Amino acid sequence: MTAAPGWVYLTGGGPGDPDLLTVRAQRLISTADAVFHDDLVPQPILQLCRLDAAVISVGKRCGKKSTTQEQINQALISAARAGKSVVRLKSGDPMLYGRATEELAALERERIPCEVIPGVSALFAAAASMRVALTDRLSASRLIVLTGHRAAGERTMPLWEGAFPQDATIAIYMPGSDYSCLQESLLDSGLSRDTPCLIVSCAGTERQQSVHTTVTALHCQIPLPPPTILLLGRTCEPDAGNGVTAMPDTEKISAITS
Amino acid sequence: MTAAPGWVYLTGGGPGDPDLLTVRAQRLISTADAVFHDDLVPQPILQLCRLDAAVISVGKRCGKKSTTQEQINQALISAARAGKSVVRLKSGDPMLYGRATEELAALERERIPCEVIPGVSALFAAAASMRVALTDRLSASRLIVLTGHRAAGERTMPLWEGAFPQDATIAIYMPGSDYSCLQESLLDSGLSRDTPCLIVSCAGTERQQSVHTTVTALHCQIPLPPPTILLLGRTCEPDAGNGVTAMPDTEKISAITS
Repeated sequence: MTAAPGWVYLTGGGPGDPDLLTVRAQRLISTADAVFHDDLVPQPILQLCRLDAAVISVGKRCGKKSTTQEQINQALISAARAGKSVVRLKSGDPMLYGRATEELAALERERIPCEVIPGVSALFAAAASMRVALTDRLSASRLIVLTGHRAAGERTMPLWEGAFPQDATIAIYMPGSDYSCLQESLLDSGLSRDTPCLIVSCAGTERQQSVHTTVTALHCQIPLPPPTILLLGRTCEPDAGNGVTAMPDTEKISAITS
Repeated sequence: MTAAPGWVYLTGGGPGDPDLLTVRAQRLISTADAVFHDDLVPQPILQLCRLDAAVISVGKRCGKKSTTQEQINQALISAARAGKSVVRLKSGDPMLYGRATEELAALERERIPCEVIPGVSALFAAAASMRVALTDRLSASRLIVLTGHRAAGERTMPLWEGAFPQDATIAIYMPGSDYSCLQESLLDSGLSRDTPCLIVSCAGTERQQSVHTTVTALHCQIPLPPPTILLLGRTCEPDAGNGVTAMPDTEKISAITS
């Protein structure tokens, strides 16, 4: 199904590799009349747009507010009202750190028909390329996703209240470049100093870089280029896979003892 | 790039709609010599396989262990050793509740080249179709992903230790059908009785059903058909979008006060 006139498609652009777009996102991007995109959406994806499509950057770079949220909302509404098929293209998944609430509410208020198309968030691209299982039967039954960008409205939020639970993988989006400060927050939240830590920069793109470290050595690490994701937990051991499966297979044990 | 002989591709099959496969997954599935798939991968996706491909179900249905993990590992290794291009197709994303660790470790031990292809996990399909932002600038800076299936090896795990943090969306995979028991665990973990709750069954498929409720009314709810995902938090209000954006825009406030 191609992009329909008068509709807005809030579309997940995935981690950056055109091959990691969903089939539906690829089709919408390549048929839309207008594509409004974030700064993080790279050229190889924008090159899928029709040659005669309006391709408009509405990025809000850290600190510099080139386009306000209100301006973006108005631009989407105007384009849809003019009968254009509109893709609002966000990196990753629109519903995870994508500020989708504001845009959806504005479109709904104006009764513009819209649809949300999920995407592969950078976290999953990082996990896949680094072969880090985010959950593991033996060592991590939970996944906690946080942001290091700790401003909500006018408030500054703590990274976490109290102690992190055991048995979890922790993923931090936008960890910033002050690893000393981050290390302090992590230690305050009860993570042990030897907790394995994996930093992945530009996950799922050609420019991906990564480094394995630990909480105790985090402050010595030279920050990798943004956007980065920081993963923490036993699943992030460089050899977690081999280590875990070297442990006795509980299925076999059940079979023997039953 | 098509599937290469002797390789195993641990591939995310997404929530079930072929349009929500990644472009890469679609290409691998439609070119592989052999596809080993979980029970949850539906026919419309399996129909993408080559007509002469070996398409083998290795599902482990709740309780019934039709195929053991060791048998799956051996089947993947044998097929790759025989020079076949092999897709190991899992629903959702392979790294989130996909038991990827065991299969990756087995392949690595045998030096079989393999690659992990991320996918859209059911949670993101649920969020997109229900227009629930998993994070929100004003009400949820964190996402906590849990499983209601609380057995890790021989142990039974509590749902959560202590109190859930404020300012989070909570997603529970495999919540089971005992909503009374789940309600008790949620209240024990400090969630308020009026916390909005959204149950989504078969997210991202034609059979999707959903119901909005609250923690206090959860035990009255007739369980929806599995697989289900339960979402909790302020972002799950039926009208969260409109409610949140009706609040003052902090960008505007900054502009006025600065």
